[in-house]
Amino acid sequence: MAGRVNISIIGASGYSGAELLRILARHKYATVEKLFANASAGKRVSDIYPWFSGGVDLAYEVYSVNAVASSDIVFIALPSGEAMNLVPELVERGKRVIDLGGDFRLKDASLYEKFYKHEHKAKDVLPRAVFGLPEWNRPQIKAASLVANPGCYPTSAIIPLAPVLKEGLIRKTGITVSSLSGVSGAGRSATVELSFAEVNESVKAYKVGVHQHIPEMTTVLEEITGDHVSLTFVPHLLPVTRGIYTSIFAPLAKNATQADVASAFDKYYGKESFVRCSGTAIPEMKNVNYTNYIDIGFRVYPDNNHLILLSAIDNLVKGAAGQAVQNMNLMCGFDETEGLL
Amino acid sequence: MAGRVNISIIGASGYSGAELLRILARHKYATVEKLFANASAGKRVSDIYPWFSGGVDLAYEVYSVNAVASSDIVFIALPSGEAMNLVPELVERGKRVIDLGGDFRLKDASLYEKFYKHEHKAKDVLPRAVFGLPEWNRPQIKAASLVANPGCYPTSAIIPLAPVLKEGLIRKTGITVSSLSGVSGAGRSATVELSFAEVNESVKAYKVGVHQHIPEMTTVLEEITGDHVSLTFVPHLLPVTRGIYTSIFAPLAKNATQADVASAFDKYYGKESFVRCSGTAIPEMKNVNYTNYIDIGFRVYPDNNHLILLSAIDNLVKGAAGQAVQNMNLMCGFDETEGLL
Amino acid sequence: MAGRVNISIIGASGYSGAELLRILARHKYATVEKLFANASAGKRVSDIYPWFSGGVDLAYEVYSVNAVASSDIVFIALPSGEAMNLVPELVERGKRVIDLGGDFRLKDASLYEKFYKHEHKAKDVLPRAVFGLPEWNRPQIKAASLVANPGCYPTSAIIPLAPVLKEGLIRKTGITVSSLSGVSGAGRSATVELSFAEVNESVKAYKVGVHQHIPEMTTVLEEITGDHVSLTFVPHLLPVTRGIYTSIFAPLAKNATQADVASAFDKYYGKESFVRCSGTAIPEMKNVNYTNYIDIGFRVYPDNNHLILLSAIDNLVKGAAGQAVQNMNLMCGFDETEGLL
Amino acid sequence: MAGRVNISIIGASGYSGAELLRILARHKYATVEKLFANASAGKRVSDIYPWFSGGVDLAYEVYSVNAVASSDIVFIALPSGEAMNLVPELVERGKRVIDLGGDFRLKDASLYEKFYKHEHKAKDVLPRAVFGLPEWNRPQIKAASLVANPGCYPTSAIIPLAPVLKEGLIRKTGITVSSLSGVSGAGRSATVELSFAEVNESVKAYKVGVHQHIPEMTTVLEEITGDHVSLTFVPHLLPVTRGIYTSIFAPLAKNATQADVASAFDKYYGKESFVRCSGTAIPEMKNVNYTNYIDIGFRVYPDNNHLILLSAIDNLVKGAAGQAVQNMNLMCGFDETEGLL
Repeated sequence: MAGRVNISIIGASGYSGAELLRILARHKYATVEKLFANASAGKRVSDIYPWFSGGVDLAYEVYSVNAVASSDIVFIALPSGEAMNLVPELVERGKRVIDLGGDFRLKDASLYEKFYKHEHKAKDVLPRAVFGLPEWNRPQIKAASLVANPGCYPTSAIIPLAPVLKEGLIRKTGITVSSLSGVSGAGRSATVELSFAEVNESVKAYKVGVHQHIPEMTTVLEEITGDHVSLTFVPHLLPVTRGIYTSIFAPLAKNATQADVASAFDKYYGKESFVRCSGTAIPEMKNVNYTNYIDIGFRVYPDNNHLILLSAIDNLVKGAAGQAVQNMNLMCGFDETEGLL
Repeated sequence: MAGRVNISIIGASGYSGAELLRILARHKYATVEKLFANASAGKRVSDIYPWFSGGVDLAYEVYSVNAVASSDIVFIALPSGEAMNLVPELVERGKRVIDLGGDFRLKDASLYEKFYKHEHKAKDVLPRAVFGLPEWNRPQIKAASLVANPGCYPTSAIIPLAPVLKEGLIRKTGITVSSLSGVSGAGRSATVELSFAEVNESVKAYKVGVHQHIPEMTTVLEEITGDHVSLTFVPHLLPVTRGIYTSIFAPLAKNATQADVASAFDKYYGKESFVRCSGTAIPEMKNVNYTNYIDIGFRVYPDNNHLILLSAIDNLVKGAAGQAVQNMNLMCGFDETEGLL
Repeated sequence: MAGRVNISIIGASGYSGAELLRILARHKYATVEKLFANASAGKRVSDIYPWFSGGVDLAYEVYSVNAVASSDIVFIALPSGEAMNLVPELVERGKRVIDLGGDFRLKDASLYEKFYKHEHKAKDVLPRAVFGLPEWNRPQIKAASLVANPGCYPTSAIIPLAPVLKEGLIRKTGITVSSLSGVSGAGRSATVELSFAEVNESVKAYKVGVHQHIPEMTTVLEEITGDHVSLTFVPHLLPVTRGIYTSIFAPLAKNATQADVASAFDKYYGKESFVRCSGTAIPEMKNVNYTNYIDIGFRVYPDNNHLILLSAIDNLVKGAAGQAVQNMNLMCGFDETEGLL
Repeated sequence: MAGRVNISIIGASGYSGAELLRILARHKYATVEKLFANASAGKRVSDIYPWFSGGVDLAYEVYSVNAVASSDIVFIALPSGEAMNLVPELVERGKRVIDLGGDFRLKDASLYEKFYKHEHKAKDVLPRAVFGLPEWNRPQIKAASLVANPGCYPTSAIIPLAPVLKEGLIRKTGITVSSLSGVSGAGRSATVELSFAEVNESVKAYKVGVHQHIPEMTTVLEEITGDHVSLTFVPHLLPVTRGIYTSIFAPLAKNATQADVASAFDKYYGKESFVRCSGTAIPEMKNVNYTNYIDIGFRVYPDNNHLILLSAIDNLVKGAAGQAVQNMNLMCGFDETEGLL
């Protein structure tokens, strides 16, 4: 067990940054000492989020590497393409970095460039990055200097898929992942498309077949299973603020039964603190709201030779800030659930 | 072109009944003369739906077969299992009936009994029922004495699937249908599960693999394609009032291309009044709100050998009352779009 | 009864413009021939509002006064401050104009400038403007060349207040108007404040005591009553798309009773097509959704010497486009309800 | 500072009971040992609220007075009229009781019977009840054996009104309180009126002038000010799950200024932990969501001689379970904010 840690958050004015603050305010051993947000520099947290008035209420600063000198852990919650400009220098100075964005999740820079549509500028650091999914990479995370915190959709899909793929209960191709996301997943932004009157009382699919989380899902699953994995991913925008609901349909292998699937989940997640899996219960988004849990349900459907997997997470918690704190807890030797229950 | 028609609605106090009233109030040739709703008998429409004050505002009556003597068309909007007690007598008396419920959609009574979990009491009438999907059964509907109006989910799934199945562009097994429904689809009912505080800010799948619309989808598609069809269907409850959004994932056949799919839709729906299909546009629920349209989008996704089909309807219009009026228009020789644009 | 009218809409790409299109598409005698929206010129209506695909689907044009030469009626749905640049020329050319914005609602230009915070550039035309509240200005509207269509909040407050003020049932000062508005009232705009994640699951008051609709309410009520009127107005933003709900609290005068208030409403609105008033029923927003009705309820509350008035309208219909068409119907000699039932 | 306390919750299966559990799970010194809910006896918390799976997850029991023998504090979260059957016996046995319902908030049993419409069966115990508003009754709460936890609406109205009434900045009659409540305030119940499709996209006033919280507001304010107070209260049902937003309009006295009002709030609440008041900021419901804060804003509006007060609370926290825990902290000598930040 370590002592206290000092924390900086870069890109602290967005929804993920605010969620980090909400969670860390209850953490026994964490002291948030610096918040960086260039466009909001000079404002206080409560100017943007009055929710925090009377609690954590630091002023946002303009970022510089020297300004984080006293911090042990640096969280980065910037749009994709920005973290890679800062991370090499931070790592070099010995900071332990947890990046909530997508810049270090794909080991293959060319894949990154294809899906993110800009050059990768920190290829040298890529090999040091550990994919921050505690359920599968716990030892590596503990030792990591750079954690690539998983994307919200990949978290909701990889956790249910990994055990049944690894146990060979489903085929590795022909898998479908259909996800529903609350609007906070798109960040705090001023666009007509995300305005209330456009989103309310509606649903739409978007980035069909081209979403940047597709290679994140497949490469991580391939690493876990040691085999080629292919899936179809369609995200949908939903009129709720928080939450991701993911429905997965996969071709069964080996005449897998409901009991086989239950065993697979028990084998890999039986002792996990944040995975709740029940064969009979159907996940609901509200049951994980403001929590770090992922709820999983499943049904073997032999009529069409499919396994149906259902999962629910809070996109800002297990899908972002909560999982980032879970990773920090591992890196610092704290109880993995500290601040998260 | 026929003259005016007199109309009765049995089960007129629910959401589908109210939607029939809303639509028929603008119909040039329809006169709604009788509304039946046993539990609300004596009340006026505006007592339950003040929206109608000043407009159509009949009193609900207790149903009897004699009370519909002067009606040409009888709409039935009762819970499943109730219409079959009334339909034989109505048909015998020469009434033309449009049943919005599920009692006459499945030709195979044993399939009905398996999924609806009660006995079918009007098997003799079953052969007379025409499945009221105008895009595929127009001639039969025109001549029908009994129309089984399609279910909301089946409408949203059969219309996009039928052309690509018929043209052999997808395989007939391994298909996935994932649907999102607004709450009005569950009817006007008093349950904790449908209360605002339970539904809001959440999503859940339900009746996974056992929904009564599954055999409706497969048998209709089998009739259209002349071959066995197998699919996995998962409906989800969504925090919106109206609308169904259906995302379909099907294994590609014959190396079908985006152009092939576009051609198939054009071939079958090019002249349809209520099918809007564009290869590039992604459907959104709000675009069909309060309309009888079904919007369809599609993407061929060769990376995982899938065709992705997306559709949106208003569950109360194209998914219920609107399609019922479309069927009435066909039965009566009116312009098919009368009252619906 | 006149023949058909040709219509232009300037500022046709916003929510009020779209609502005009929705309503006019069902109008027997109106032909929408031109849509102007400079920023969207070249796009079609369905590019912005796919809802209209297959129906009215003109292309937006850049506005010029010559382009409206063939139009009889010109609707303007521009932000405040823009209509006044166009109206003088239009009126001079003999066009009959209905302005849905605020530029011509206040006869006193200095009051306009105080609340709208910019100069009034068409003072000469101001005297010609008729405030388009049919229930109180019907004769003037019929003859008008320029109708200032009332604001959404003023419509919801003036209609319930006018009869009881005119009959002396309440005092003319100390009145409170507390209104709740759906988000479409703020227009189709890209701001963080109106984004879904900010508006959802919340409520806030705004422009407390400084809203530009305050002088509109008081001057119109003063004109109707012939006396000074003073009220406190607080609007609130609500997580719904459409609708305004207004709760009014006024000091009772003359020991007015519930029956007195009922008589006043009956006296002034007994024959009105779009005012629904019942002493016992409490208005609900959903009951006027997509209609041109205003629903009014009231309670005399002697314990605190107050009259409570409650009203509900659809901000885009009776609060904007619907009332504008009602005015057009009057101006053109059509049935006042044409296109609106 | 006391040691740990053992806690029972009677009526633990409703929304307030669940919120007590959520809050107490983070309390350093509280052990929830017994949950009573007769209709749900035998079920576990997570059967009704899967959110709690893996955390606090006791089974509900049938209530008996002997079953609470080991508890120090008993929370009651039952519908009005039920607590009064249990409280006398509990108090007699030396239990310290916090009742979240309305049975002990009105000292005058006849007033209770007028508004709650049933007999008061525990009149003997009424004098022992302390109204649990810490900001005004802190010393009495510390010593109380029976705390009547304030209603949600009264909390939102009394806290902003008390200082300005006490300082004579507003008149004591002619006050208006207009409140907007989320649906969870109506409890977890199966009614058509509270179903999603009825509440969504709508607003309505209800219990206009007859709500049982009216005498609670007036009698508490009269006790604080020592003078007769009269107000008009109208609650509205809002399509959000949590939160109350209260807008108050009061006739100004003594030419009170913005600075006078600010001083009054500072005088009474300057050192309060859960009252956030700023003259310039407008409260928003989302800023107090899931917190025990009440946010207050105000505007002196001399044009109509009014003071406008605005407040926001979370109805389940400061309006129910949070304030109840705040009271427990006072009764037990814990830090008043324990478990609530």
